[in-house]
Order: sequence, then structure tokens, then C-alpha cells
Amino acid sequence: MKKNTAVLLMHCPDQRGIIRAVTDFLYENNGNIIYLDQHTDYSCDQFFMRIEWEIDSFLISREKIGEYFETLLAKKFDMVWSLHFSDQKKRMAIFVTKLSHCLYDLLYRYHSKEWKLEIPLIISNHETLKPIADQFDIPFYHFPITKDTKEAQEAKQLALLKEHDIDLIVLARYMQIVTGNFISKFPNQIINIHHSFLPAFVGSKPYHAAHTRGVKIIGATSHYVTEDLDAGPIIEQGVCSVSHKEKVSDFIRKGKDIEKIVLSNAIAKDLEHKILVFDNRTVVFD
Amino acid sequence: MKKNTAVLLMHCPDQRGIIRAVTDFLYENNGNIIYLDQHTDYSCDQFFMRIEWEIDSFLISREKIGEYFETLLAKKFDMVWSLHFSDQKKRMAIFVTKLSHCLYDLLYRYHSKEWKLEIPLIISNHETLKPIADQFDIPFYHFPITKDTKEAQEAKQLALLKEHDIDLIVLARYMQIVTGNFISKFPNQIINIHHSFLPAFVGSKPYHAAHTRGVKIIGATSHYVTEDLDAGPIIEQGVCSVSHKEKVSDFIRKGKDIEKIVLSNAIAKDLEHKILVFDNRTVVFD
Amino acid sequence: MKKNTAVLLMHCPDQRGIIRAVTDFLYENNGNIIYLDQHTDYSCDQFFMRIEWEIDSFLISREKIGEYFETLLAKKFDMVWSLHFSDQKKRMAIFVTKLSHCLYDLLYRYHSKEWKLEIPLIISNHETLKPIADQFDIPFYHFPITKDTKEAQEAKQLALLKEHDIDLIVLARYMQIVTGNFISKFPNQIINIHHSFLPAFVGSKPYHAAHTRGVKIIGATSHYVTEDLDAGPIIEQGVCSVSHKEKVSDFIRKGKDIEKIVLSNAIAKDLEHKILVFDNRTVVFD
Amino acid sequence: MKKNTAVLLMHCPDQRGIIRAVTDFLYENNGNIIYLDQHTDYSCDQFFMRIEWEIDSFLISREKIGEYFETLLAKKFDMVWSLHFSDQKKRMAIFVTKLSHCLYDLLYRYHSKEWKLEIPLIISNHETLKPIADQFDIPFYHFPITKDTKEAQEAKQLALLKEHDIDLIVLARYMQIVTGNFISKFPNQIINIHHSFLPAFVGSKPYHAAHTRGVKIIGATSHYVTEDLDAGPIIEQGVCSVSHKEKVSDFIRKGKDIEKIVLSNAIAKDLEHKILVFDNRTVVFD
Repeated sequence: MKKNTAVLLMHCPDQRGIIRAVTDFLYENNGNIIYLDQHTDYSCDQFFMRIEWEIDSFLISREKIGEYFETLLAKKFDMVWSLHFSDQKKRMAIFVTKLSHCLYDLLYRYHSKEWKLEIPLIISNHETLKPIADQFDIPFYHFPITKDTKEAQEAKQLALLKEHDIDLIVLARYMQIVTGNFISKFPNQIINIHHSFLPAFVGSKPYHAAHTRGVKIIGATSHYVTEDLDAGPIIEQGVCSVSHKEKVSDFIRKGKDIEKIVLSNAIAKDLEHKILVFDNRTVVFD
Repeated sequence: MKKNTAVLLMHCPDQRGIIRAVTDFLYENNGNIIYLDQHTDYSCDQFFMRIEWEIDSFLISREKIGEYFETLLAKKFDMVWSLHFSDQKKRMAIFVTKLSHCLYDLLYRYHSKEWKLEIPLIISNHETLKPIADQFDIPFYHFPITKDTKEAQEAKQLALLKEHDIDLIVLARYMQIVTGNFISKFPNQIINIHHSFLPAFVGSKPYHAAHTRGVKIIGATSHYVTEDLDAGPIIEQGVCSVSHKEKVSDFIRKGKDIEKIVLSNAIAKDLEHKILVFDNRTVVFD
Repeated sequence: MKKNTAVLLMHCPDQRGIIRAVTDFLYENNGNIIYLDQHTDYSCDQFFMRIEWEIDSFLISREKIGEYFETLLAKKFDMVWSLHFSDQKKRMAIFVTKLSHCLYDLLYRYHSKEWKLEIPLIISNHETLKPIADQFDIPFYHFPITKDTKEAQEAKQLALLKEHDIDLIVLARYMQIVTGNFISKFPNQIINIHHSFLPAFVGSKPYHAAHTRGVKIIGATSHYVTEDLDAGPIIEQGVCSVSHKEKVSDFIRKGKDIEKIVLSNAIAKDLEHKILVFDNRTVVFD
Repeated sequence: MKKNTAVLLMHCPDQRGIIRAVTDFLYENNGNIIYLDQHTDYSCDQFFMRIEWEIDSFLISREKIGEYFETLLAKKFDMVWSLHFSDQKKRMAIFVTKLSHCLYDLLYRYHSKEWKLEIPLIISNHETLKPIADQFDIPFYHFPITKDTKEAQEAKQLALLKEHDIDLIVLARYMQIVTGNFISKFPNQIINIHHSFLPAFVGSKPYHAAHTRGVKIIGATSHYVTEDLDAGPIIEQGVCSVSHKEKVSDFIRKGKDIEKIVLSNAIAKDLEHKILVFDNRTVVFD
């Protein structure tokens, strides 16, 4: 049987002795490390690490690990850190509008237990995709949004997300710009899929723009949502070749398959606690 | 032995009967078609075709083919066309500054006879790469360029290019913006390699910009040069994955290998008369 | 509105005048060609063509096109040909065992009307995937197969396929070897997805074999089924990078996404009548 | 200025405390770690690590590091290890036959100082490529080989390699099978480029075989040479798409560009001491 593990994600100013201190802490307390990856970004002198260890025989109880780590290590090295346990599941909300390809792909992976997560609800500004939510037995909430109602509707959405203890939001081709207030409640917890190879073709209708420009490769980008439209930290990108033979509708069709893969890969990394964000860029561990 | 062939590249407003008319013309005059590819772009109702046939037993002499084609077909269908023969070699000039990777790659392919072309000269605004030109025994001309001398130097370059009957110019990481006057002398005859996945990161230092943006894929783009900087018709693009582990210098190193391939593929297509330009986009036949 | 079209797929020994004769035939009978792609394989002197034209104002009635084409053209050039109409839908049966990823992907595309086809039934040697068939409202037939019952069960399957007018069979990770007798009833009409980059790792457990061999790229291959196991004409292949960090289970997980794309692309090409088979290889038009 | 570093490559049976012990050893002796990557292969319970640290202020002199490491750590954990210094250059011999593309690519990278290495000599069984060696001013040795002379010629080659202190051999499309005796003198020190996507198409003429099989993707593989032909540990693989339009000669032409990249990437990893071999597979650190 797979053993219970803890995952520590951290970053701090680079200095000598961090790895040694952390591995020492785990070793002395009987933790068996099963994953360690780290990275130093010399352009900003920042050290990043993900470390995972078996906790069943760890000498510090799981409730106390955070406190001990903060006291004995994080303070000393000025770390920003988060702690996760393998037996915890993230709770993810999916936001959609009318396009079904990403939603279906996510629900299939959920349904086939490819991922360790709960999807308590789907939110949409249209009713179009309700039948799919029904097909997979997931509650579907319809929040029609106009310029005037946006603020009020977002407030209701936030209440609903809180009620369901949501800690990850996926915008699966959600055709609404989310407000700064909303985003501030979920920092680096909202993943969007943009249907272009960012930073090319920001905004709406990127496949049309790509076709007009005559590019020979199209792409998709998953990123955490920040207040700057389509400018948040990139998690994953994918591409495919196109030729003069392909119309905008072909770009859209081929792009859907890239979007699905790129979005699901980004979510997988997030669920595995393998992403760190610093200075609007991501460290994505293997 | 490989037989002599003629290649006709053409485009015209789409209408019924074009393929039939052209193939009929060739058939009736004893031409054996060995290549036919065509494309209709319904967004602009334009028909594109490349057709190649053996001319040794063709009933119309090669000197007369153009005239007959113009009279019997091009006028009728309002075609823009060009005619090429397999025993003619393009004459290509290479413009460089200080970076050697593309230059070396081009000269190697030339030297190993991968391509059917002549390279009568290399032009540079610096002397840095003269030793490589010497190594391959190709005349090297040094035109230092300042803001004040640009116009005069370009005039001299144009005279030199004319003297050498140059019909294709490759900017192999030439770090100068070529003037509109210069470009107008070589419409769709100047191929540039830009070291980004256009239209992302136009201008200088695209790898630095890509690194700052935190992209996960970098690329290179070859295109015909027009007056709009980095905005000419794209011929070919290539990409490779990058991660947080890679510094700007790694982007540059990996990018060089993409640039070489993307540039040489674009040149190969041009040399084979497989590219048609319309409305700032390319049709690139296989 | 999209107009009705006819598609002619053909191949014959290469000779002068084929394109001209066919385009002439269509032109003279008021057919507007909207697609023409052709290929000559000089290694076997065989000419291949796909041509599509609007038939609403075509002078020959659709019932008579085949007869006229056979009489006026096919006999003369010794063509092997097939004729298809855009308002006809292929009828596809899906064979599965226990793995759901390809099945789901196919049903999603079917359900979202990405393709023009009917899926009247799903056949399996296990009941595992019946709930998915139910979810999409498609009849599911369970044919358990042992060495002893294989022949009898296949006979029943064939009867069922006949009854449902099936003209395309997809083996979507169907873990049974189909007999030569079965295959002979559906020549080049059975598409399989093999979970390796053929011809590497023929047979079962290719991901395990790939891991043992230490490859750095894995792949998937879709092909028409012939009597030689995993040796039929390849339609499409796809790959992705792997590293030493990935276990067999990671290969399997990543492979699933490739398999889905490769299989669905192959089916799309078949449905568009863009595949010709000759000498155990395919011509796949764009 | 870049500081001098030491690199330790090691593997051993997995157990608790290895990272902590090694980082502790470096920390206590004033070593500043600038790279650490490690991997545990649970299928064989083997732990792999590459660690690099600045040595200018390291308390143990470089001559003594190996001894201390062996005594204090390697024995305890049963490690297989090697130690390298950033100011040491590998000395690489290139073996070629008649094809120039890989040779040119390697010499260009050498010449442009992309790599930290010396290339004291080129060895060939034909004189064809001597002019290229001359162009780059590298001694070229001609060893014609027949079945009868192979043993004697290899003995001379080995003497020459020894005389030049060669510690890395690259077979850059060397069309000879090297004997087991020769290989045994350079375990995991001979890198070959095979022009197929191994294990598909082992042996000679893989592009012909790939064309006959009708594959849609071709590839190249770099690997360490072992006694089993084309079966040594794979370092890197690359691929590109092909279609029915491409002849064997096109496969060969496109393949050359993949071979160059795949071979040079493998060499780069070797030169950076980022490859560990275990059980006929490689761990290739980023």
C-alpha cells in the first residue's frame, strides 16, 4: 500500500546550507525522503524546493510539523512555505461558458480517478453545459452575468465557493473576465487555459488573429490568473503545426486538443504540489 | 539522370476550370507533369498552384513557354505567375553581423551540395565572421553602418548585389534594420530569421523577453522581410521546450539550433519554388 | 449552407494525362472542384488522387456517376477507385475491453458532433465499460471470448455488424487478436490503436518494454488491421518525451493522451475519405 | 568570473540519509552547493545523484576530495562514484566514415567554443572527410579496415587513443562495428548516433526500412556503445514527422538534421557530467 506522505513546498533567498538543514531536520526525526527537487534562480537569488517524505513513522505529529518547521527552519532562512499531505484532496470548482471540450476532458479524468481531487460544483454564465454536469452527476450553478450584475453575481459565487471549501478554480474556457476582487480571494489558485501561445494573441479570438497573421504553429497556454489579462504566471504551453491549408475552424478544432492536454497537465502539477510562483513566473518540478 | 523540368508558380481569383485548363495545356504540348499541388483559400477566393513538368520533349521551347502561358492562360484567368527551370540556380547573398551559427549552417549545406544554389558573397556590418567566409572561400564584404552612413552603404550594397545578379538575400542574424528602399528592390526575396515565436517578442532581445515572461516554449520564425519590422509573411516556425531551470543563456543556446533548422528549411522551400505570398501570408507547398 | 459534394478516391499505374482526364470529365459535366490532392509514388509507379466536387449542378446524376466514371476513365487508366458522398455517414462500431480513455474520447467527439458518423453499437469482451455506453446511450454488446469460443463469438459479432450496416470498426484498446477470417470481411476498414511507436514494441505490454529498454520518447500508432499482428498500414503516429524520472505507470498515463489523439486523428482522416492504402502503406491526404 | 567547481556523480542502493550525509559533508567543509539533482529508481532501489559545489574555499584540497569522500561516505553507502572538476576538459576523438553532417556540426560547436573539450584527432576508415579535418586543423588518421585487418587496426587505434589521453569517443556515423575488446577499453565512454528511433530499425539502412514500413515519424538515437549492436543505454532521442510524399532520400535528408541535434545534445550532457548509467539505462539530469 502507498504510504502517507507530507509535501513541503518552499522558497527563500538563496544561501548556503538550506538543503542540508532541511534534510537534517527530516533525517533526525525519522522521515524517509521519497522526493527532493530544488532549483536556484540566480537572476533573483531565490532558492526553491519541494520535498516529500513518509510520515507514518515521522517523530513529529502531522499537526505539529508546520509549527516545528516554522520555528526551527523557516524563520532562520526567511522561507515562504506550504505544507500538504497525501491523504488530503483539493476541492476544485470548474467555471465554463459554452464550450465543452475542456469540461468533458476534466470530468473524464475525475471520473476515471486519474486525479486525487473532489469537484463539488460547476459554475457557468450559461446553461448550455448543464447536461454534461448532469451526465457526470455534478451540481451545476448558473450565474448569468451582465456588466451590471457582475459584482453581485461574483459575490454569490464567492459565497458558494467558500461554502464548498474550494481551494482550486479552473477556468475551462470561461468567457468572462474575472474581477480583481475575485482573484484576490484565490491567489495562484485560479488556473486559466488561454487558446494561444502566450504572449502572442492575448485577448479574445486568438485563433482568428493567428490565422490572419499566417503563423505556422498554434498553441495554448495554461497560467494562474492575475489581474493583468492573460499575463499571469505560465504553467504549461503546448503547440501544434498548421499550414496554409487550414482555416480558422481547423485551428479551433486542432487547438481544442492542445487546450485539453495543456490544461489537464497544469492541473495535475498543481494537484501534486509541484508548482511554485515567484515574480510572475513558475517553477514547475518534474 | 534527372530530367530537366519547368516549374510554374501561380495564383489567381478562384474560378472553375483552372486546373483543367493548365493540365490540358501541358498535356496537349506533351509535358509530363511530375508535381502538382494547389490550394484554394476561400477566405479571399484565391487559387494557388505549383506545377512542374518535364520539358525535354515539351513541344513549346523553353524561351517561349512564358509567352504562350501568358497569352493562352494567364490573361484569361488573371493569373500572377512565375516560371522557373530546374537547371537554373538561384544566387544568394548572406548578410551577417557577429553570430556565426546560421552562417556556418548555411555554408555547410552549400558546401555539401545539399542545395542547388550559388553563394557569390557574404555581406556584414562587422569583420567578425570574415574568417568563416575565408574558410569556405566565399568573398566577404564589410560595410560598417552608422545612422549617418546607412543610406550610402545600402546604395553600395545594392550595386554589389546587382553586379552579382543576386536574386535571394538571407539575413542570417543580421543585426541591422534594412530600409524600405532596400526592401523594395527585393520584394519577397529577402528571408530573415527572427529568434522568437512571432508575433510574440518582436524586436531585439526576444530571448530575454521570453525569459522574463516565463514562457515554457521558445521558438524561431523565418519570414520574408517587409517594411513592417518582424511582420512579414511567415514561412516556417520551430519551437522547443524550456523550463524554469534554464537561464537566458540556455534559451540562446537552444534557440540557435532551432534558428538554424527553421532558416534552412525556409531557404530550401524558396529554392524549390514552393512558396507563394498573398496578403502577407504564405502558401508553402510540401 | 454547405453544398453536397462527391469524393473520388483512386489509384492506378502512373501515366501521362490522368489529372487532365479527370478534371476534364468534371469540368465538362459542370462539376466545381473544391479539393484536389494527388501523389505519385515513383518507387512503385503508382498514382494516387482524391478529388471532391459539388454535385448539385453536376450533369450526371449521383446514381450514375460511378458507372460513367468506370466506363469513361477507370477502365482506361486501370484505376482502383471508390466514390463517396458528403451526405452519407459512415457507421462505426467500437470494440473495447477494459480501458476507457479512448472510448470516452471517441464518444465525446461523437456526442459533440465533431464528426459526421453514426455509432450504432459498442462491442466488448468484458462488461467493464457498459456504464460508459449507457451514459452516452449507445447499445453495448458483451461477447466474452475464450480460446474455445472465439470462432463462434466472432461469427455472432459479424452477424451483428452486418445487421447494423457497419462499415468502419475501431479497436479502441481491444485486448483480443482478431482472426484472419474476421479481418477479411473488413479490409482496410478496421482501425487499431497500438500503444507504441511501431514497429518498436509489437505485441502486449509495450510500455513495460519501452521502460525496460530505457527509451526517451514513447509513442502510439494507429493502423489498419491486417493478419500480421501490429503490422498493418500505418495511418498516424504520435510521440511524447519521457525521462528516467518516469515509471511504467507514468508512461501508461502519458501514453493515454497520445493514444486518444492519434486514434481520433486516424478516424477523422478515414471519415473524410482521405486515406488510400497500397502495398501495406498509406497515402494520407491533408 | 565563473568559479571553479567540483562535480560528484554517484549511485548506490537507496537508503535513508544519503542526501543529508552528502550535503552535510559539503556544508561542514565550506562547500557552496550550486547544483543538486537526484533520482531514486524504485524499480531497482537505486539512488542517483549529481552534486556540484564551489571548491575555491572548500576546506579539503582537490587532490584529497576523492579519498575523503570514499572514506567518509562512499564506503558507508556502497556508492559507485566519479569526481570531476570544472577546469578539466574531456579529450574527445571522433570516428567517421564518409558522411559529413555530424562531423561538421561537432567541429562547428568545438570551433565556436560551445563546449568545453579538446578534440585532438579524427579517425576514419576512409579518406573522404580529411578535407574537413584539414579545414578545422585537426589531425586526421586513416585506418582502412577489412575483415582481416580489423583486429590489428583497432590495436593501432587504441594505441593512438591512449597516446592522446582520449576519454570520450564519438561515432559520428562511423560505419563499422567496433569489437567487444575495443568497447571494453571505453565503458560508457563511446557515444554512437543511430539513425533510427531505437529499438525500431536496428542495424544498417534504417531509413530504407522505415520507408518500407510506411512510418509517419522518423527518428534518431544517441546511446553509449555496448557489445550488443544498437542496444546500449539510450541517452537522447529525437523525431520528426514524415508523410507519404517523402522518399527515402527525403528521410535521409531530414534525418541528418535530427541526428546532428540528438548527437550534440548527448555529447553536451556527457561533457557536463550529467549522465549516469545503470542496468543498461541512463539517468540524464537536466
